Amino acid sequence: MRQALKRIRLFATDVDGVLTDGGMYYAESGDELKKFNTRDGMGIKLLQRAGLITALITQEETKLVARRGERLAIPEVHQRVFDKLSRLRDIAARHQIALEDVAYMGDDVNDLETLQAVGFSATPADGVVSVQKKVHYVCRLKGGEGAVREVVDMILAAQAGSTTDLWFRTAKPTVRGS
Amino acid sequence: MRQALKRIRLFATDVDGVLTDGGMYYAESGDELKKFNTRDGMGIKLLQRAGLITALITQEETKLVARRGERLAIPEVHQRVFDKLSRLRDIAARHQIALEDVAYMGDDVNDLETLQAVGFSATPADGVVSVQKKVHYVCRLKGGEGAVREVVDMILAAQAGSTTDLWFRTAKPTVRGS
Amino acid sequence: MRQALKRIRLFATDVDGVLTDGGMYYAESGDELKKFNTRDGMGIKLLQRAGLITALITQEETKLVARRGERLAIPEVHQRVFDKLSRLRDIAARHQIALEDVAYMGDDVNDLETLQAVGFSATPADGVVSVQKKVHYVCRLKGGEGAVREVVDMILAAQAGSTTDLWFRTAKPTVRGS
Amino acid sequence: MRQALKRIRLFATDVDGVLTDGGMYYAESGDELKKFNTRDGMGIKLLQRAGLITALITQEETKLVARRGERLAIPEVHQRVFDKLSRLRDIAARHQIALEDVAYMGDDVNDLETLQAVGFSATPADGVVSVQKKVHYVCRLKGGEGAVREVVDMILAAQAGSTTDLWFRTAKPTVRGS
Repeated sequence: MRQALKRIRLFATDVDGVLTDGGMYYAESGDELKKFNTRDGMGIKLLQRAGLITALITQEETKLVARRGERLAIPEVHQRVFDKLSRLRDIAARHQIALEDVAYMGDDVNDLETLQAVGFSATPADGVVSVQKKVHYVCRLKGGEGAVREVVDMILAAQAGSTTDLWFRTAKPTVRGS
Repeated sequence: MRQALKRIRLFATDVDGVLTDGGMYYAESGDELKKFNTRDGMGIKLLQRAGLITALITQEETKLVARRGERLAIPEVHQRVFDKLSRLRDIAARHQIALEDVAYMGDDVNDLETLQAVGFSATPADGVVSVQKKVHYVCRLKGGEGAVREVVDMILAAQAGSTTDLWFRTAKPTVRGS
Repeated sequence: MRQALKRIRLFATDVDGVLTDGGMYYAESGDELKKFNTRDGMGIKLLQRAGLITALITQEETKLVARRGERLAIPEVHQRVFDKLSRLRDIAARHQIALEDVAYMGDDVNDLETLQAVGFSATPADGVVSVQKKVHYVCRLKGGEGAVREVVDMILAAQAGSTTDLWFRTAKPTVRGS
Repeated sequence: MRQALKRIRLFATDVDGVLTDGGMYYAESGDELKKFNTRDGMGIKLLQRAGLITALITQEETKLVARRGERLAIPEVHQRVFDKLSRLRDIAARHQIALEDVAYMGDDVNDLETLQAVGFSATPADGVVSVQKKVHYVCRLKGGEGAVREVVDMILAAQAGSTTDLWFRTAKPTVRGS
């Protein structure tokens, strides 16, 4: 597994149930919410510092996912995707990265094809059972509770010593906030 | 149990505490929210692909439940229902389905009558104790955390091999999202 | 304990951390939310059917708590109360109920005085340790996850056979919703 | 540890993942929410009664954190801080408090430097593993579920007998709410 993790150059993930707890909050006013996790966010930013391409691929289409993607400066945010594997192939090809060097996280049957095509696949602790059976790694943590960060930490441990090492090695000159 | 599951042609469920975590979010602005689950949503869509009728029956009346029903293309959304069993009988009769071929999920005393009248009854792991004692199946998962999907997976395992089999057998020609 | 529960005629509870999970949701827009539980709501309505007085006593003051109280038809909703015990004495006196016949639920140090003055006191599973040490009963369930319903079920078991018995005994003539 | 806790005169904490469950709620409307905890809020107010300086230090900048800080009357609310340790040194110096007499809570790699510089450091039960290895104390409770209160109770036990003792010793003359 460490060997597979060492090669990863592109990290792609589904959104609902992986970057969130699967919750679809509906408001009487018509609003909708999703709950992301601050530690997953830090993980994605650290992958970028380590030079990996980061990507979101989801079947849904919302402004809030676009906004979360912008906030985390994720270069590849793909919504309303029904054939996730084809889309991931396109992204990887554009960056000249082989699927063997791609990590993908998903939690449901519409992620199965993609999970089985990449070099490293993982699902949150609460991914559906049929997905858990097919991935390289089932997270200790649930979706939205740090499952993405758990995989990020594994990738960085294989590639950069540890998440902490990477953090201190890449720390920007300190900025005095106000 | 497998025999009962094999016959199910109509899947009906209560909303609060089954399709949600029981949370009634109240906002100071007057807004109200409920938290649904993406994996339950996928489960309901898969039941429809398998040819089952899907239904929501709730005592409350909110626009957000109507919207969730529309999003999942649930044909039978019944709100402000005080006599759930009568309503379910009407729905089943209209579709010429016997109550023996109906599955119903509920979590509280106002679901008891209905739960005891159908061919297969289930409650989330956190359904009230008096309901847990009367149903055919107590879920491993809580309401809003995938209890509905758990039952869906059981129905599809009995009727279609597995949820995954059904998914791949019914997959639409791939669509290139944008 | 059953003897104490049998006498209860007034059920009073703190709000944050007992009827909710302790969550104080703050929105960037200025809005604020709390998360109540549908099964607690049913429990409070069942207590009313059994003839008990229900009351909320909280230090905070929000429109959303007033609205939750109205929805559940709670006759005694008291906000911005700094001396909870005096207020509870007033309520009980007005209804000519002795403190021995009052149940109170709270989760923090500002509830201690009141918890120690009533006939039956309880705290959610996640009430603070110093409160857990002083109450008659520590719930199996957490605040907002059904702790109130747990105590309601205990009261109704002592007074009405069971929650289910009461439900069926007091069921209104069925209403055909639309 | 008790010796370290006895000296604490300034309590500072990160926000996301410590005072919250790490959840970043994004709404389709553009709104954003965080979920704080009522028992943490009480804990912070009790520290102030005990004479400690309280502080929030976060990298993010939101109006909702400013509002939570105001509600709890926290005198030192510092947002958009990229060098947390320098900022904490400034705060401590201004109050003439040595870093040995400061407690700090954080949950991620950007808190490591600060955690290792203070007299007492702690992280919630779900703080990242690399942080858990470097702090004096790993909480039993998660962020947003009372981790801050857990540390407050430890400080007050060392300094004031117990949280309860402090509560009753400092109780204001009772106020009759309306």
